[in-house]
Amino acid sequence: MNNFSFYNPTKILFGEGQIANIGKEIPEDARVMLAYGGGSIKSNGVYQQIIDAIGNRIVCEFSGIEANPEFETLCRAADEVNEHKVDFILAAGGGSVVDGVKFIAAAANFAGDRWEILTKGGKGIESAIAFGSVLTLPATGSEMNSGSVVTRAEYKAKLPFGSPLVFPQFSVLDPTTTYTLPIRQVINGVIDPFTHVMEQYLTYPVGAHLQDRLAEAILQTLIDIGPEALAQPENYEIRANIMWCATMALNGLIGVGVPQDWSTHMIGHELTALYGLDHAQTLAVVLPANLRVRKADKLAKLSQFAERVWGITEGSDDEKAEAAIAKTEEFFRNLGAGTRIEDYDLEPSVINTIIKQLESHGMVKLGENKDVTPEVSRKILEAALR
Amino acid sequence: MNNFSFYNPTKILFGEGQIANIGKEIPEDARVMLAYGGGSIKSNGVYQQIIDAIGNRIVCEFSGIEANPEFETLCRAADEVNEHKVDFILAAGGGSVVDGVKFIAAAANFAGDRWEILTKGGKGIESAIAFGSVLTLPATGSEMNSGSVVTRAEYKAKLPFGSPLVFPQFSVLDPTTTYTLPIRQVINGVIDPFTHVMEQYLTYPVGAHLQDRLAEAILQTLIDIGPEALAQPENYEIRANIMWCATMALNGLIGVGVPQDWSTHMIGHELTALYGLDHAQTLAVVLPANLRVRKADKLAKLSQFAERVWGITEGSDDEKAEAAIAKTEEFFRNLGAGTRIEDYDLEPSVINTIIKQLESHGMVKLGENKDVTPEVSRKILEAALR
Repeated sequence: MNNFSFYNPTKILFGEGQIANIGKEIPEDARVMLAYGGGSIKSNGVYQQIIDAIGNRIVCEFSGIEANPEFETLCRAADEVNEHKVDFILAAGGGSVVDGVKFIAAAANFAGDRWEILTKGGKGIESAIAFGSVLTLPATGSEMNSGSVVTRAEYKAKLPFGSPLVFPQFSVLDPTTTYTLPIRQVINGVIDPFTHVMEQYLTYPVGAHLQDRLAEAILQTLIDIGPEALAQPENYEIRANIMWCATMALNGLIGVGVPQDWSTHMIGHELTALYGLDHAQTLAVVLPANLRVRKADKLAKLSQFAERVWGITEGSDDEKAEAAIAKTEEFFRNLGAGTRIEDYDLEPSVINTIIKQLESHGMVKLGENKDVTPEVSRKILEAALR
Repeated sequence: MNNFSFYNPTKILFGEGQIANIGKEIPEDARVMLAYGGGSIKSNGVYQQIIDAIGNRIVCEFSGIEANPEFETLCRAADEVNEHKVDFILAAGGGSVVDGVKFIAAAANFAGDRWEILTKGGKGIESAIAFGSVLTLPATGSEMNSGSVVTRAEYKAKLPFGSPLVFPQFSVLDPTTTYTLPIRQVINGVIDPFTHVMEQYLTYPVGAHLQDRLAEAILQTLIDIGPEALAQPENYEIRANIMWCATMALNGLIGVGVPQDWSTHMIGHELTALYGLDHAQTLAVVLPANLRVRKADKLAKLSQFAERVWGITEGSDDEKAEAAIAKTEEFFRNLGAGTRIEDYDLEPSVINTIIKQLESHGMVKLGENKDVTPEVSRKILEAALR
């Protein structure tokens, strides 16, 4: 097990009706910006619940935060924070809104060029506006971590940043807010956490027995109940478990003391930035191909994954690994996600463009061994083609 | 899944050499009390590492915090905190020292009768001195939670209290500090976390699929590596996993949204307070008997525990439950712990005394269904006799 430090001060309020309790979590005299995306929080009742809980503290609203939140939009919001002397931001929505609010919180007081928050990955952030979230789309885990990904369309760039100053102070997870999600978002909400776990688990063994078991616990749960989340949209128990899986998959705990990969995410980000695929769709495309191309380096963990998560006990390590990757891709496909580039009506020529973008973003030494060069990324994309 | 709130701001510094980093976690101008138990931190080098890291900030030392820390001792320490204007306490030792420092931190500024901190379970605590810990004996999980248990020998009482104000600001977990632990403490360090998990897991199903899997992950890890921790005292990997299991077993995460039992602990506390058994010894005695006596109420979870943790798939639910309880008791015995009252040279007559103490401490409606009356506790103790 590698040395690590772990710190996560976000308070979680979980369960039906918890939005009513946010009044106790936000200072009485706070000047609150309510930040959200489109109008879904108005149609599903979340907006009204928030107004009922803290309406008198809201001094401005900022709507229109996009899926893959856009740098320009967020900078406008940061300006409004300053203009209205906002000292608490409440994010209401999915991972994009929470990620967006993290950027707004950091950008409002940022001394230099705000684009550097992203190009320097969060280094240089010295303060941030306090914020909390009401999560309505479980997937990214942003509600309980200090990372964020922001897109700048003019540069076709989608870049991550992080800082201990951008942990949400609290996040409300009410599973009933997910009942009305479009089916595609529910599929994404299973694949995204599944892949988050895989990025932290499927590398090479370092004797972190507990972390392995905890990661496997989340994977097993998602496999058990993922299909039911689609079949029974208003099954509270199922939606509650999916929601908590998504948070636990990326709140830092399963990734302590172990090597981490994240190459699937970095390659996937380019697919989103260039062609607008949903984040989870890119993961469904890249993960299986990534595991196939780098099977030899990941064999010990792939074999363990096969045995413990998929119950595959027959065959050589290589055969178990192949079977487990096939099972994983089949799991994604059965949920309804395309797992090949051609499923999204893209031509093989996109590969050249993606590789060029990876290079221009410095994503040239990815993965737990820093050996996912543009050449390896190309092989992965070729394996994901059809 | 039940509604829950979760909050845990303790920072963990994990791994060999991490004591050297505590200087960054304690304010430069802090007036520090170093609190510890006997002399083991001096013989194993931990004391010197602490002095090297923050020696100039230590204004007083308080040694002599006992196993099952004693109210009178801790009150003396709280007086010294006030006398020396201490504003940061560093606990160095095992769960007893950390529990003790939580009480000292809360008691120093406590307005009323300090005994009420315990009789009221922590209600009424309005502030606490900041503190951190260097853990040398993994077992209780106190290093990453806000609970504590304190003993008052003159009353033969061992009572818990908790408050969000007594989370450690940080805890250092360096597995090498456990290499020199006496074998009995290592045994305790497996049984204590195992039982902590069971108190939160082995109740009745509420559809908390993820919490169940996470609990099972810790149990499986302890079963896999517990025996090796005894056989190979200086195996870093094994000791690291045991240490992290102990923290994860009681940092609140696996217990969110599920019913909890804790009757084994409450009955066990009386055994310690009356007869001086180690905390984990009392758990090894009470847990198997408790599961046997209340098997009918816990059958669904016992059957799941049998299948997933012990791999027992044959037989009726009742047979699987029996086999799993037998396996659990065998696991404790194979580690070297006595699992019956008579193993500790106590007479059957102690049962009457224990029941009287439970009654006098108000422990008359224990367990997840509040139906562990003194009568049920008696049955449990009778089942644990020989």
